[in-house]
Amino acid sequence: MSISMHSASVPIFVRMLKNLSNCIDKAAAHAETKKFDPKVLVESRLAPDMLPFRTQVQIACDAAKFGVARLAGIEAPKFADDETSLPELKTRIASTIAFLQGVPAASVDGSEAKAISVPRRNSEPMQFSGENYLRNLALPNFFFHVTTAYALLRHNGVDLGKSDFLGG
Amino acid sequence: MSISMHSASVPIFVRMLKNLSNCIDKAAAHAETKKFDPKVLVESRLAPDMLPFRTQVQIACDAAKFGVARLAGIEAPKFADDETSLPELKTRIASTIAFLQGVPAASVDGSEAKAISVPRRNSEPMQFSGENYLRNLALPNFFFHVTTAYALLRHNGVDLGKSDFLGG
Repeated sequence: MSISMHSASVPIFVRMLKNLSNCIDKAAAHAETKKFDPKVLVESRLAPDMLPFRTQVQIACDAAKFGVARLAGIEAPKFADDETSLPELKTRIASTIAFLQGVPAASVDGSEAKAISVPRRNSEPMQFSGENYLRNLALPNFFFHVTTAYALLRHNGVDLGKSDFLGG
Repeated sequence: MSISMHSASVPIFVRMLKNLSNCIDKAAAHAETKKFDPKVLVESRLAPDMLPFRTQVQIACDAAKFGVARLAGIEAPKFADDETSLPELKTRIASTIAFLQGVPAASVDGSEAKAISVPRRNSEPMQFSGENYLRNLALPNFFFHVTTAYALLRHNGVDLGKSDFLGG
């Protein structure tokens, strides 16, 4: 087996999203033990001008979803970005994983040189080859939000360790 | 060009380490402007039982260094882990990048099925194929520490944005 565009993307996204979902279970249990409203975690931030936990999770899901959809040249499912609780964020993750797992490997493989255009709010779209898109945007941006979500929980006292982040 | 074990690892490590080094420049400038000792940042943590900034940077370097050395089947350079300042951490990053850039692509390519053994402190070594090692340990662990280092600076008021993390 050689590494391929599918094997270098989908299994990473799926595994890390599952780990993040497990971290959310531990966050919910922590809030219950300490008797505080878990929505405090949902709205928590590492800095006043950083995005809250819920948005970190939403963007992690979207980085994976759009990453694979663009490489495969298919439409990504739309999510309403209306999650306000830990269980709803888990559902968002599960929907994202279901989408990722439904994309045929063959539709992602061979996308190394595919022209990828990524829209931006206030300027021209960014243009990438498929491989540069995966390497320079999709993967780093995904890991940024997954790690920041983990860091937020850790910063707020949830008993997590590296093995929760990396998975078994 | 097809994606390869080299193209899926070394360019990611090098680019993200360069971005981290640039973030450290901004951290140093911030400390100077605000007139505080930059060693406060070097020793800062997101939680009392998380590793400080300097160790996040050291481990990010090591994750890249060992990641590529193991795939290539070569010895990684030894670093003393004695950095106590932002400039020393930048030197550590530069030494790591120099090592990564000196590894011939051909020695990393084709390592998908290579048997990789990763020592652990208190238990048996973890065993991976090369591709699973890259996907499940080397990349996630690298991004964990790079992102946590960024989050630490951001949490402490350094004026950074996503574009500093991702690079231009």
